[in-house]
Amino acid sequence: MQSVIHVNLPQNSYEIAIASGSLDKLGAWMSGEESKPLNLGKKVLVVSNPAIFKRYGERAIGSLTAAGFEVASCILPAGEQYKTLTSLQKIYNLALENRLERSSTMVALGGGVIGDMTGFAAASWLRGINFVQVPTSLLAMVDAAIGGKTGVNHPKGKNLIGAFHQPRLVLIDPDVLKTLPPREFRAGIAEVIKYGVIWDADLFAKLEQSSRLDQLRYLDEEILQIILKHSCQAKAIVVGKDEKESGLRALLNYGHTIGHAVESLTGYKSVNHGEAVAIGMVAAGQIAVDIRSWNKAAAERQNELIKKAGLPTKLPTGLDVEEIINSLQTDKKVESGKVRFVLPTQIGAATVTDRVPPDVLRQVLWQMQ
Amino acid sequence: MQSVIHVNLPQNSYEIAIASGSLDKLGAWMSGEESKPLNLGKKVLVVSNPAIFKRYGERAIGSLTAAGFEVASCILPAGEQYKTLTSLQKIYNLALENRLERSSTMVALGGGVIGDMTGFAAASWLRGINFVQVPTSLLAMVDAAIGGKTGVNHPKGKNLIGAFHQPRLVLIDPDVLKTLPPREFRAGIAEVIKYGVIWDADLFAKLEQSSRLDQLRYLDEEILQIILKHSCQAKAIVVGKDEKESGLRALLNYGHTIGHAVESLTGYKSVNHGEAVAIGMVAAGQIAVDIRSWNKAAAERQNELIKKAGLPTKLPTGLDVEEIINSLQTDKKVESGKVRFVLPTQIGAATVTDRVPPDVLRQVLWQMQ
Repeated sequence: MQSVIHVNLPQNSYEIAIASGSLDKLGAWMSGEESKPLNLGKKVLVVSNPAIFKRYGERAIGSLTAAGFEVASCILPAGEQYKTLTSLQKIYNLALENRLERSSTMVALGGGVIGDMTGFAAASWLRGINFVQVPTSLLAMVDAAIGGKTGVNHPKGKNLIGAFHQPRLVLIDPDVLKTLPPREFRAGIAEVIKYGVIWDADLFAKLEQSSRLDQLRYLDEEILQIILKHSCQAKAIVVGKDEKESGLRALLNYGHTIGHAVESLTGYKSVNHGEAVAIGMVAAGQIAVDIRSWNKAAAERQNELIKKAGLPTKLPTGLDVEEIINSLQTDKKVESGKVRFVLPTQIGAATVTDRVPPDVLRQVLWQMQ
Repeated sequence: MQSVIHVNLPQNSYEIAIASGSLDKLGAWMSGEESKPLNLGKKVLVVSNPAIFKRYGERAIGSLTAAGFEVASCILPAGEQYKTLTSLQKIYNLALENRLERSSTMVALGGGVIGDMTGFAAASWLRGINFVQVPTSLLAMVDAAIGGKTGVNHPKGKNLIGAFHQPRLVLIDPDVLKTLPPREFRAGIAEVIKYGVIWDADLFAKLEQSSRLDQLRYLDEEILQIILKHSCQAKAIVVGKDEKESGLRALLNYGHTIGHAVESLTGYKSVNHGEAVAIGMVAAGQIAVDIRSWNKAAAERQNELIKKAGLPTKLPTGLDVEEIINSLQTDKKVESGKVRFVLPTQIGAATVTDRVPPDVLRQVLWQMQ
């Protein structure tokens, strides 16, 4: 299985390569043996977390060294709660110690947290150096690693500090998913369902046909291929049409408005990103039904998929509805104090609105308690 | 006296307005009453330091409020040693408290340190919001406020962390220079001399004609006008041709290779930026003479201007030559381990080279002790 998807941008176009066993060819991909030359310099800083690095670090570094790169590594603690300026500083320190230059490259070997931080470190070191995404979680493969959104969290809000900085290459090796914990796999499936709802009715239908979605080992190889390829394509097309999120790209925030509030209020700990997005999609779907932009049957089909993936459809216990509503005001998506929601119009299409009546929002959240 | 200089860029073009008394019209300029509409949103965060804010904060904020903006302020300690991630975090905290949105604007009211930090905060808050430069030092007016280089220092190197992020407007009120301490005025003159040497022979000649350059109060109003206009124009043209420093813009680093090393090794305290650049220009000029790219008489004319401005031409006492040479390796301008120097070829023109023999560099630095 090998697919190459192009992300076409005015500047900084790049490729997403999906290929089993490609982790062992990272050096070849980066040096241009497997694709066109990327001019990624000689020095590479691999950023990862302890568990991922223990499992895959040696293979990645071996492959880079064999291709002639000088490699250093930076290991950061795992978890959204470490996606901070403090972790960023550790990357900067290693960039300095290893004398990374403007032509050098940072490689993110890990999930979305590692990818976002490494990307922002690369965006801001010497005002911008190369970076390469080697996502190891399903969530990062289908979403976080693609599109150039990078950043860290502020203690009071997710991703408030960051930059748009496109990777030079995204290399996806589906084999590494075999060691991904089931809960993290399900988190990725939440974003896959999102693409089905807002963009790709075929993908949605394939997900419905799959007997299970909750663990990788119950999935056909074919459905995994479809999931990776269709999701990356959806993201690549949307980002290609609207890199800096002035319009279309906002659709990708489906489920994320309330999702971010839930993540933030639970301290990025008890609820993971995918679970929060699942909750957000259930809420946004119900809002769409209540204001008559979507039909009830379609919303129920979405919620069935979410349940089949073992993802939550209710708010976490103890979370206050008014706190969620207040937290929405600090979201990046707020314009002139108005909260913007992405709402489905049919399966495979959605729209953006800032005209959700506060009563509807409040009632939907109450019902999800 | 009023001049408007255009900075023409593929995206994000903007104007530099030089006008006496314009500080009181900041709100009018930003709301589009004095120029074309800029769509700068409703919320403004003014970033400044205690001394500048005490002197000019009320006037700036009064003018913004009168123009209908909602204004908050963030006061950071003065000095290069506070150009850190920690100061940045204070700006982020106030951006959050005041709920700045993607359409909101940060205003840098201060010198280069305030401008660089505010610019990087604006570049990275919500992945990029508007910012406006209101430079209050000569150095910031003629250099730092123009061109979109923003950032903070790493403890071991200047400006290592940052972004390219263009201001939406640069508003220069020459009247505020009257309260600028003479030593800071001279620091600005260092960059003005730089433009004369590398770009603008007319400016160089005018500087030679001025009887004094060391304090504002001894300068004709005409020469001040020429200084501001010619310097801003030189920077605007160079930045317009090479925004991200892939070629021509590197010329602006004349005097900065050794200058940065001197600043860094003295802890950004005893030697200010302009003084360091003056030292760097003397060194680079002598290197150019030694490798026969510049004639001795021209270098002496440059050094006379530097002396007339009351700027240093020797290394600070106690600074080790080998330490300087080692420090050059961590400079952003290093490519494949080779240090790049800007060297004059005649008055008003310069070139970039990475072929300075280590012996020549070492000898020039020894002679400057």
